Amino acid sequence: MREGLSVGEAQDRILEATPRLGDETIPAFEAAGRVLAEPIDSTRRHPPADSSAMDGYALRREDVSKASAESPVSLPVVFEVPAGGHGVRPLAPGEAARIFTGAPLPEGADAVVRQEDTRAGKGRVEIRVTPSPGEHVRRAGEDFQAGDRLIEAGVVLGPAHLGVLASIGRSMVAVHQQPSVALLSSGDELVEPDRPVDGGRIVSSNSYTLAAQCREIGARPIYLGIAPDEPRSIEKRLRAGLRADVIVSSAGVSVGDHDHVRGVLERIGCRLRFWGVRMKPGYPLAFGVIEATGTLVFGLPGNPVSAAVTFEEFVRPALRKMMGHRSLFRPVVRARLAESLHKKAGRLHFVRVRLESRDGEVWARATGNQSSGVLTSLIRGEGLAIFPAESETLVAGSEVHVQILDMGFFDRADRGF
Amino acid sequence: MREGLSVGEAQDRILEATPRLGDETIPAFEAAGRVLAEPIDSTRRHPPADSSAMDGYALRREDVSKASAESPVSLPVVFEVPAGGHGVRPLAPGEAARIFTGAPLPEGADAVVRQEDTRAGKGRVEIRVTPSPGEHVRRAGEDFQAGDRLIEAGVVLGPAHLGVLASIGRSMVAVHQQPSVALLSSGDELVEPDRPVDGGRIVSSNSYTLAAQCREIGARPIYLGIAPDEPRSIEKRLRAGLRADVIVSSAGVSVGDHDHVRGVLERIGCRLRFWGVRMKPGYPLAFGVIEATGTLVFGLPGNPVSAAVTFEEFVRPALRKMMGHRSLFRPVVRARLAESLHKKAGRLHFVRVRLESRDGEVWARATGNQSSGVLTSLIRGEGLAIFPAESETLVAGSEVHVQILDMGFFDRADRGF
Repeated sequence: MREGLSVGEAQDRILEATPRLGDETIPAFEAAGRVLAEPIDSTRRHPPADSSAMDGYALRREDVSKASAESPVSLPVVFEVPAGGHGVRPLAPGEAARIFTGAPLPEGADAVVRQEDTRAGKGRVEIRVTPSPGEHVRRAGEDFQAGDRLIEAGVVLGPAHLGVLASIGRSMVAVHQQPSVALLSSGDELVEPDRPVDGGRIVSSNSYTLAAQCREIGARPIYLGIAPDEPRSIEKRLRAGLRADVIVSSAGVSVGDHDHVRGVLERIGCRLRFWGVRMKPGYPLAFGVIEATGTLVFGLPGNPVSAAVTFEEFVRPALRKMMGHRSLFRPVVRARLAESLHKKAGRLHFVRVRLESRDGEVWARATGNQSSGVLTSLIRGEGLAIFPAESETLVAGSEVHVQILDMGFFDRADRGF
Repeated sequence: MREGLSVGEAQDRILEATPRLGDETIPAFEAAGRVLAEPIDSTRRHPPADSSAMDGYALRREDVSKASAESPVSLPVVFEVPAGGHGVRPLAPGEAARIFTGAPLPEGADAVVRQEDTRAGKGRVEIRVTPSPGEHVRRAGEDFQAGDRLIEAGVVLGPAHLGVLASIGRSMVAVHQQPSVALLSSGDELVEPDRPVDGGRIVSSNSYTLAAQCREIGARPIYLGIAPDEPRSIEKRLRAGLRADVIVSSAGVSVGDHDHVRGVLERIGCRLRFWGVRMKPGYPLAFGVIEATGTLVFGLPGNPVSAAVTFEEFVRPALRKMMGHRSLFRPVVRARLAESLHKKAGRLHFVRVRLESRDGEVWARATGNQSSGVLTSLIRGEGLAIFPAESETLVAGSEVHVQILDMGFFDRADRGF
């Protein structure tokens, strides 16, 4: 066990110890946002036959090779192709057939002239353009052939993927499982939000934030409640979390005499891998693994902001790795600092910032009080500016990297084009 | 009713006709991602009392005004402050009290010296630094006071907001309702994914894509199934969607003789506002409003890509407006074109592109076949490049605006700092 790792070292050690979870097979209809655990190959071709891309007339191109608006060519309309194309006879030279988008091309036809380029008469149609070969025809298998690899394993399934799965008749797909995360708060002063807060009690808000952080990425929170600062009680509640993939406790891993969680963790078979990360907010971060089960254990600081930020930096990438994601980290944008920042060298600071776009540049401004107890500073900003460990000053106007926590930052109030 | 609007005109007309839905009150625990419909004011202050930000010792600063590592000051530790702070007596001059993070400061104390800057002895503690006034003390109400506006109406609730709601004991919040969206496909050739596709039949994949597009933003899809190209059947199914907030039909609004949906819509009381948008994919887009109920009706083209893209451009912003969002549109990034693009002037083209970051710039490359039937071209790209209506050529290397459809584009495989 080492103390005081850098943020990067801590992330590396956590991810080394983090397994990718196994697969489960679920209805494709419910698979949006999940990471595909198998490649998808087509069992059929699409479109199944040459078909029309427009509403218009199927014909033989040679019959209208000199047609134009000035000298249209008139053809008899000998039948209409039904949508499914059943029972259609081949098209003979000099004939046209009425056809609609998606209907299969009759044998013999090699082009479609769209309705707008024709004039319909009684049983006949005037063709007013010369189509190019195969114009407005979708070729059989143009989209994909039987056996084609359609989707690679590891892809995050979006709406279009579900459409593709439907189009080849796949109703069930294998995806990576989503981790369960047991959440425990500890502290004698903590109460649930529906309880009175007299006598110095404060609401245990961490679990509400952490549960939402889990849900946001598809992990399943299991809230173990609040344990008083008493080893047996903490141990009992933690044991209720042993079947989860991840245990996250907040508070109780500080250096204080009251911090029993660390000892308790050892008693339930958790081997601590490190304790303490050189960052602010959030120094006292503990990470371990329950040896018998492989359950990851994170001991987060009790301060609301420290808990939320350490979850972001350490727990979230691990959960994303478990569920098969390749991109484990938040987006990072470059921004200019609206004001200078100062600190001592030694710890990387994650500074809560509000972002504003001005003249094509993004400007970052710290959200006032950066004390780790100030939960409201997290809701006032969109991101965390990276103030590197060894820096002491970032001057106003200089460039910083900002992790984007609120993806709404990217959305637009105007259409942007 | 006008035909052939520009994309922007069509979006404006749709949004003008789109109401913001009313409120509903739901458990705060389930409110992540919802748009707050009421401002949240605090009913209490936080922290409730002056409290310690660290594990250490509470003391009177004047007693240790010359303490340093070289000449530490020894004080008696007269009690330990319990986490809730109950029954603690005031601190007399010359005394120190053991204190832990979050515990209330005893009366008389005006600073906390953290454990790391002390050396504990038997019943006494050596103080090795001089704290500044209020050092490591969180002031009562430092985060917020009773009556403070904590969250404005219109905010999209994230994990930190749920923590703030918990911390003031709010368990229920008013948010904007989420729209229900009735989805109908029509076409004789269409079958559900679990049916055989012989005889020119193709799977109706649109509803699967559209349902996922609805769910992605929190709208509730109601799938009305597939209607054959027969007016009475279409009308019957559409009537099943009349209690939804939005009806989305795909196919059936083209110029073809088989396109009954348009007539049917008029029979069920839908006043068409426009038909046709000068864009590709997706020209035949119809939009109307059921006069009796205010239900919005979108008639999307039947081609899978046209349906998905017109949903993106027209239905999605309307649904976001209904649920109270202020940012209705997708993120847009600037990218350089990897290859030249050509088209005729007149319609805005949305070109499916794959994006790649190279030397700090984003490059966009069209995903091969842009035929609107090619659903797989949508899953191969992250965005839609905007090829303006009046442009005929975009040369390789020039800049385009790209709408980001796959937010995973922003995520990082490395930590980015």
